[in-house]
Amino acid sequence: MSVSDLVELWSDLSLDAQLQSFRALSRDDAEVFFSSIDSRAAANLLLCLPPTERRTWMRLLAPDDAADLLQEVSHEERVSLLGLLDEVNRKEVAVLLAYAEDDAGGLMSTRFARLRPELRVDEALLYLRRQAKEHLETIYYVYVTDQEQHLLGAVSLRQLFQAPAQATVREVMQPAVVSVREDSDQEAVSRLFRHYSFLAIPVVDAEGHIKGIVTMDDIVDVVDEEATEDAQKFGGMEALDQPYLDTGFGQMFKKRAGWLAVLFIGEMFTASAMGHFEDEIAKAVVLTLFVPLIISSGGNSGSQASTLVIRAMALGELRLRDALRVAKGELVTGLALGLVLGTLGLLRVTLSDVFFGGYGDHALRIGMAVGISLVGVVMFGTLAGSMLPLLLGRMGFDPASASAPFVATLVDVTGLVIYFSVASALLGGTLL
Amino acid sequence: MSVSDLVELWSDLSLDAQLQSFRALSRDDAEVFFSSIDSRAAANLLLCLPPTERRTWMRLLAPDDAADLLQEVSHEERVSLLGLLDEVNRKEVAVLLAYAEDDAGGLMSTRFARLRPELRVDEALLYLRRQAKEHLETIYYVYVTDQEQHLLGAVSLRQLFQAPAQATVREVMQPAVVSVREDSDQEAVSRLFRHYSFLAIPVVDAEGHIKGIVTMDDIVDVVDEEATEDAQKFGGMEALDQPYLDTGFGQMFKKRAGWLAVLFIGEMFTASAMGHFEDEIAKAVVLTLFVPLIISSGGNSGSQASTLVIRAMALGELRLRDALRVAKGELVTGLALGLVLGTLGLLRVTLSDVFFGGYGDHALRIGMAVGISLVGVVMFGTLAGSMLPLLLGRMGFDPASASAPFVATLVDVTGLVIYFSVASALLGGTLL
Repeated sequence: MSVSDLVELWSDLSLDAQLQSFRALSRDDAEVFFSSIDSRAAANLLLCLPPTERRTWMRLLAPDDAADLLQEVSHEERVSLLGLLDEVNRKEVAVLLAYAEDDAGGLMSTRFARLRPELRVDEALLYLRRQAKEHLETIYYVYVTDQEQHLLGAVSLRQLFQAPAQATVREVMQPAVVSVREDSDQEAVSRLFRHYSFLAIPVVDAEGHIKGIVTMDDIVDVVDEEATEDAQKFGGMEALDQPYLDTGFGQMFKKRAGWLAVLFIGEMFTASAMGHFEDEIAKAVVLTLFVPLIISSGGNSGSQASTLVIRAMALGELRLRDALRVAKGELVTGLALGLVLGTLGLLRVTLSDVFFGGYGDHALRIGMAVGISLVGVVMFGTLAGSMLPLLLGRMGFDPASASAPFVATLVDVTGLVIYFSVASALLGGTLL
Repeated sequence: MSVSDLVELWSDLSLDAQLQSFRALSRDDAEVFFSSIDSRAAANLLLCLPPTERRTWMRLLAPDDAADLLQEVSHEERVSLLGLLDEVNRKEVAVLLAYAEDDAGGLMSTRFARLRPELRVDEALLYLRRQAKEHLETIYYVYVTDQEQHLLGAVSLRQLFQAPAQATVREVMQPAVVSVREDSDQEAVSRLFRHYSFLAIPVVDAEGHIKGIVTMDDIVDVVDEEATEDAQKFGGMEALDQPYLDTGFGQMFKKRAGWLAVLFIGEMFTASAMGHFEDEIAKAVVLTLFVPLIISSGGNSGSQASTLVIRAMALGELRLRDALRVAKGELVTGLALGLVLGTLGLLRVTLSDVFFGGYGDHALRIGMAVGISLVGVVMFGTLAGSMLPLLLGRMGFDPASASAPFVATLVDVTGLVIYFSVASALLGGTLL
């Protein structure tokens, strides 16, 4: 089996089969393989190997990859694995581990190519040729620094290639470089990569010293991770720290039970709201039949609106100051959608009465109550669903917390009040 | 203002302000700027310029960027803009436009660096130095082809840099290259980039001829796009073709009304289900007060489960064959979550009776009915929410269509049946 086939298949193999296939690889293939799999898989594999073999594999990893791998194991194992590295690398990895995983500092690699500004282009190329043999993250972007490691500029290997041999690096480099601070959030970093087609972005500290680089391939993982976090929050739970299948019962329960209980307590107000209309319900039980239909329509239209706004905010297409524009648009859309559902609701009640009977003399009035309530509920759902993420963003929370269940809960209580109020007004003196 | 500041600010400027700031740039800055903004923004800007100026800017673009820009404009404008290119480029762009936008062919650039296998490394470097001046997508990955453009292997500029000057390209290159077919879906391509940290992947036809390359920076856009599509589907609507703020009322209505109406019709079964229990409801109106609470709990737990499974499937962490494992896990989690909400429900009814009264002699029995139903409803919601995406995937649909509203609708009907059945059994002979 080729190395790339094995990488593809890996996650489907049992632990035994993994170990067996890894052992079957030639030394060279095994090294390529070990560097190709993600840090979680590498960590699991490493822990399957006898302690005597671990040293070789740990030392194969670049410091940022070693740090990523160490993020995946327990604290005890981390200390023991860290001890396998030589001193220089151990220090470097320890520095990387100190950064928060979600910061630019936690993403960056410290193995970048650097040049002095006064070098000539032909000297620079020779120098890079030597550096290419080291374990650098990339030699395609080279950072120009002074002796104190202040970032002065950047030059791509391609620009060096095109430049006259006698020019200096300073003449060829881009003096103004897009960079990020060590403590920049990874979401901000990924937005920069979206804007520019850079292969790498340098990470600097407050004094402008270059500390490392973040490369494009780390960013695909970040984009995935952020989308997963947002999706899980939108589904009404806390984001998981690990892949679904690797998450144990305890974690899974903790991440889900909290929000579910909060939503449940919020939803308790529906019972209070309905209790308020208990007399009306007792007089006209038929009204209750449409309660789930009406409140779910509000929840569904709210879920549409909030998913649109959350995603547009995540991509930076939408900002807080667009709130008024969004509100206007959603009100119009909500009215149109409400009219569609309202008409369907009216038809449902009246036609069902024509064919099966059961609503007595009041079929049309009940139908009108259902239809008009639907227009109101859908408009409210649409507006609440679109404004809630913007409001959460304004207050400094993650807009993705305006989850489908959260919006539905909010709309359910209001929906009940709208429905029973409309019904009371329309049916007062007749059915009620 | 610097070019990078302008890129950041661009989408917030009015059309007038955009045109004015673009005009204020020096020629060089304007060229950098025009190549930095995304294809939609570039298209809008281009159409604001007088026709006489458009030619220069169109000709500045690499064929794949030109093709992307042309995807953003109306058919008529496309023909007129295409006419501004010289013949060679026009043909190349027309070829790219013929690929579906979501295929590898639609993503690829035809401007890649190539080498013959028999060249020596020092000759290859010289040759690449000349090619670096052309508008190639990247010179960092070089593809080795025979005269008929069959892909023989690939070599990175870094590998060439490290290799002895006298070695041949064939000796240095990787003979087995990960490649994709022209008609591969962009989602499959992005999965390959996730697996490997490649900067580029070559695109080949059925006979193994290289047609172009897809680069990593295109993939960040693809990953974003796919996550947005999935999020919108999960929110219970069709995915939008354009950014939220650029989508007009007609499109917006069309993408949302369809699913909303389908869900509404599905939800109509709740009225039928409740109609079934109309006698019980008439006898014990108090039971209806908890209907929204109970069915929304099923919907919420279903939404959690489906979001987890959909996202895990999208990332390739979960496959169809894991269904049984997922079902077992979700049943256990569902039971635990159900017990939590069931207990809360029981407390809600009994405590409210202690403090406010109103449930007569039946408070405990009603509380038990609510509590037990919640366990059943949450377990069903969890199971349905986790299995539905897998089932849809099995049938060839997009798992993301198992949206929060879809799952909620499914669970609402069942939830009502569970609740009223449990209540009938527990309260039969007393309240009912």
